Amino acid sequence: MNIRRWVRPEVLAMAGYQPGEQPDGARPLIKLNTNENPYDAPPAVLQALTEVDCSRLRLYPEPSSRPVREAAAAAYGLRPEQILVGNGSDDLLTILMRTFVAPGATVCVPEPTYSLYHSLCQLQGGHFVGIPWHDGWQLPLSALLAQQAALLILARPNAPSGHVVPLQQVAALCQQSPGIVVLDEAYVDFADDNGLALLHTEENLVIIRTFSKSMALAGLRIGLAFASPALIEQMHKVRDSYNVNRLSQLAAVAALGNLAAYQPSLQAIRQQRQRLSSALRQRGFQVPDSQANFVLATVPPGPRSGADWLATLRQEGILVRYFGSDPALRQQLRITIGTPEEMQQLLAAIDRLLA
Amino acid sequence: MNIRRWVRPEVLAMAGYQPGEQPDGARPLIKLNTNENPYDAPPAVLQALTEVDCSRLRLYPEPSSRPVREAAAAAYGLRPEQILVGNGSDDLLTILMRTFVAPGATVCVPEPTYSLYHSLCQLQGGHFVGIPWHDGWQLPLSALLAQQAALLILARPNAPSGHVVPLQQVAALCQQSPGIVVLDEAYVDFADDNGLALLHTEENLVIIRTFSKSMALAGLRIGLAFASPALIEQMHKVRDSYNVNRLSQLAAVAALGNLAAYQPSLQAIRQQRQRLSSALRQRGFQVPDSQANFVLATVPPGPRSGADWLATLRQEGILVRYFGSDPALRQQLRITIGTPEEMQQLLAAIDRLLA
Repeated sequence: MNIRRWVRPEVLAMAGYQPGEQPDGARPLIKLNTNENPYDAPPAVLQALTEVDCSRLRLYPEPSSRPVREAAAAAYGLRPEQILVGNGSDDLLTILMRTFVAPGATVCVPEPTYSLYHSLCQLQGGHFVGIPWHDGWQLPLSALLAQQAALLILARPNAPSGHVVPLQQVAALCQQSPGIVVLDEAYVDFADDNGLALLHTEENLVIIRTFSKSMALAGLRIGLAFASPALIEQMHKVRDSYNVNRLSQLAAVAALGNLAAYQPSLQAIRQQRQRLSSALRQRGFQVPDSQANFVLATVPPGPRSGADWLATLRQEGILVRYFGSDPALRQQLRITIGTPEEMQQLLAAIDRLLA
Repeated sequence: MNIRRWVRPEVLAMAGYQPGEQPDGARPLIKLNTNENPYDAPPAVLQALTEVDCSRLRLYPEPSSRPVREAAAAAYGLRPEQILVGNGSDDLLTILMRTFVAPGATVCVPEPTYSLYHSLCQLQGGHFVGIPWHDGWQLPLSALLAQQAALLILARPNAPSGHVVPLQQVAALCQQSPGIVVLDEAYVDFADDNGLALLHTEENLVIIRTFSKSMALAGLRIGLAFASPALIEQMHKVRDSYNVNRLSQLAAVAALGNLAAYQPSLQAIRQQRQRLSSALRQRGFQVPDSQANFVLATVPPGPRSGADWLATLRQEGILVRYFGSDPALRQQLRITIGTPEEMQQLLAAIDRLLA
């Protein structure tokens, strides 16, 4: 069977994005590999799901997720027509590519960053350009702008580094880019500030958010895009008609109505991030300051490579993330911030391995 | 703000697919416009949702919906690697376009049919060709094949007509088409037969199913694609990494394990379809034999146009679907089969309007 005559060459050529391992629960593992929240969503949010009227499940959901857009508008000081809801922020990234990237158009990012951007650009037949971060994770502003990209994507906080670019530089990117600038704020609830205010002045800016990290609802697939109504209107044409299911819409509204109830878990994660960063540095790891719910740790000099650390930690029952296919990340582990107990078990395992 | 410099011309040019009205429930309406099931899913299916472990919702779902693929394989006599799960069958149609349709490649369908095929082809930058059905909804086989399409889509039962093409003609399409043939079986559980057996012999065939009609789970967004493992493997690269959320995966597994419990509602819908078709014909409507959960009724000759019927039925509190932007469907209403009570109310309203 020769499938080459049927499948688009871009698809044939690609490996496909590889998400982090999702263990089946058969063996207890400490899961620090896909940046989920170690704490459940607040009771009021989960309660909303148990109160669902099952007789509504035979009906399609509200096509544009209007209740979610209204709740998000109230929560973030925007108007509903500035908001598009996605089946996770992956859906929104796909919509962005399909709305703004013509075949051969350039998508530009500072690298390393979330590798899905590259996969989605390939799928769309776009021209992908990754510009290396300057030393110390400084933004390569002029090199990014020189590409005159149709779509320029900046994750802030960045993955897998956790660092943040100053907001003035984001504004400069928007003002000097001829194309659309996407600010991926998947991890912004763990950071000190966010880019929402830029929406007032930057008409080529799209901000995306996810409910999979700070909101502890990765299992429900909810993302938000914020932009001018004119851009959102075009993106609506590209999304699937009923892209967000009824239960996820319900949970999203509940989460947006209970943002304050999330504060204790956000605070705990920030505190653990600080403690873990210090503890890792004491053990010889290099750890840049992170404003996300993970840290990027360069392993200590020694016989054990990054890949070795990944494997030996897994033997200890601890999953972390390793991006060794990127030469810039061969000696790094990305470690999700978990509960205090999980962090202690991680450090105990590291101490055993270093002994 | 001039968005033309940013948005792909294909997107700018299109109106976007318009789904049927989803009323907000403020006014009681008899909803016969989007082919939902009038009966709830069996108790065992809804029960599965109430038993969800909410502490898992903070975790991503199984990326490839493996439990659903295994349950579907058991239910339909396939292997899990022949199955891809979508966020509704709309997601699967999008994946099909993005996997198999290069810019400028031809997508061919007999028309009228589900208008989303056209919208998705436009989005992908494909070349769309609709070939009119021959009189009496006969398949224009040679004209379809003459297009040498990359993707040829046949809805069976067709929407909005409800008729079915003989399976031998589907096999002929597959055998003589140089491209992929998609058999959209969204409504097949209401029909007398299906195309599953063709998967054994036709390597360019993709069958898609939805849980939004017969399975009464439109609110949860679940679809299935069946094809050879080689084609499914390529389609996996194109779907979003976590395209089906945890709760929908759970409900899908429960539904697939309870197919027999759906039989009474399927039987009731078939019976009501027969009764409504006869009753409408007695009142001067033309109604082709339908094997779906809807009928396409040509309104009786008289002063009242199809658009008038739509509007007056709405005044009577009854929503039906009207596709008047298609010249071939100006005098037709597509009416979803509801409960016996809903059908009686519809006929009573029609009698009032004809009196």
